[in-house]
Amino acid sequence: MTPTRISVVEKILSANDRLAAENRARLDEAKVFSLNVMASPGAGKTSLIEATVKALSSKLNIAVIDGDIATSLDADRAAASGAVAAVQINTGGECHLDAVMLAQALPQIDLSPIDILIVENVGNLVCPASFALGTHMSVLIASIPEGDDKPYKYPGTFHIVDTLVINKIDLLPYVPFRMDYFRRGVEALNPEIDIFLLSCKTGEGLEAWLAWIEQLVYDHPSER
Amino acid sequence: MTPTRISVVEKILSANDRLAAENRARLDEAKVFSLNVMASPGAGKTSLIEATVKALSSKLNIAVIDGDIATSLDADRAAASGAVAAVQINTGGECHLDAVMLAQALPQIDLSPIDILIVENVGNLVCPASFALGTHMSVLIASIPEGDDKPYKYPGTFHIVDTLVINKIDLLPYVPFRMDYFRRGVEALNPEIDIFLLSCKTGEGLEAWLAWIEQLVYDHPSER
Repeated sequence: MTPTRISVVEKILSANDRLAAENRARLDEAKVFSLNVMASPGAGKTSLIEATVKALSSKLNIAVIDGDIATSLDADRAAASGAVAAVQINTGGECHLDAVMLAQALPQIDLSPIDILIVENVGNLVCPASFALGTHMSVLIASIPEGDDKPYKYPGTFHIVDTLVINKIDLLPYVPFRMDYFRRGVEALNPEIDIFLLSCKTGEGLEAWLAWIEQLVYDHPSER
Repeated sequence: MTPTRISVVEKILSANDRLAAENRARLDEAKVFSLNVMASPGAGKTSLIEATVKALSSKLNIAVIDGDIATSLDADRAAASGAVAAVQINTGGECHLDAVMLAQALPQIDLSPIDILIVENVGNLVCPASFALGTHMSVLIASIPEGDDKPYKYPGTFHIVDTLVINKIDLLPYVPFRMDYFRRGVEALNPEIDIFLLSCKTGEGLEAWLAWIEQLVYDHPSER
């Protein structure tokens, strides 16, 4: 059974990659810089997006696309924080977004005024890493209470992302977490990765993240 | 593309269900009671299994099968805590265990002296729920820092499990978590579910969980 299954997955992936390239072209044409945000359930994707939108919506037009198995709780939060557009994709059981879903969501947003599109993937540390969406950059959020062994146990996702946010650093005094061990695992898998330590709850470390995002948007070739 | 994909998934599932039934028959024949433990990455699957094995290994012969994308960190911990047998399944990228993998792992254990087999699924709140393994009971671990919206956002898994462990209750003072809201979501999806609140770190609440597991093993028709 296994070989058949693998070949089906490969066929889906190559169709996905073609569509991802089309999504990228559409975003580039509209001069929109885009992020794919991945994490375990509860690591703080929605909270980080909310904090980012709140802080930057006076300077940048931000759109958010939220992927979830069910509910529109996340898109509601993004809209409430000041996103110019917020679209919820309910995957109906699928454990990740794919390029088809993004291609269906993009026409629901008027991209012309948008500076940055933040795509919140389904909460899952495995599957989203296998499906390119066509976004310009990928961000993984890891959170302190998840434990320091995560890079070793989920190497695929830590390997493919461009940026790592370590969230919930306010919980460091209350949980066992060896930062050195965690970072050694991350850096072995992904030596070039950018790392931000922060707490969406207390706001500690958010400044550096926000300055970095803002700079990315201004530096991006698509900047108007 | 979608219809083709769905029919492939259905074919895999029905093959999986047949194999799950064979696994169950093999476990029943050997008089082994078995648990399928599911959770997000970092919710505390390995810690709960470790605490359970440590506390009960003087009374029960426990075997542990650990599913992970990579590494044998979890099986090493299970073996160190006193499990009679510990087998690691590296799924090589697959985001869940399935009945085929369990069927391959079972012959690696001498089941005859085993009272209880604990299967630790891959850390994922979505995919494992779709693949029966053939175990007698399923346990979901949710942890306080993941947030109180998880039943609403991952309804599939909360709906199908028999038992819910709410772990890391020692972090309740440090994170926003509305227990009422969380429990309302759980009970709407799964009114009959058994719920345990505990902290693997402090040991609070572990007694009730351990007594329940021990009772299950003794009450099970397979008890020798």
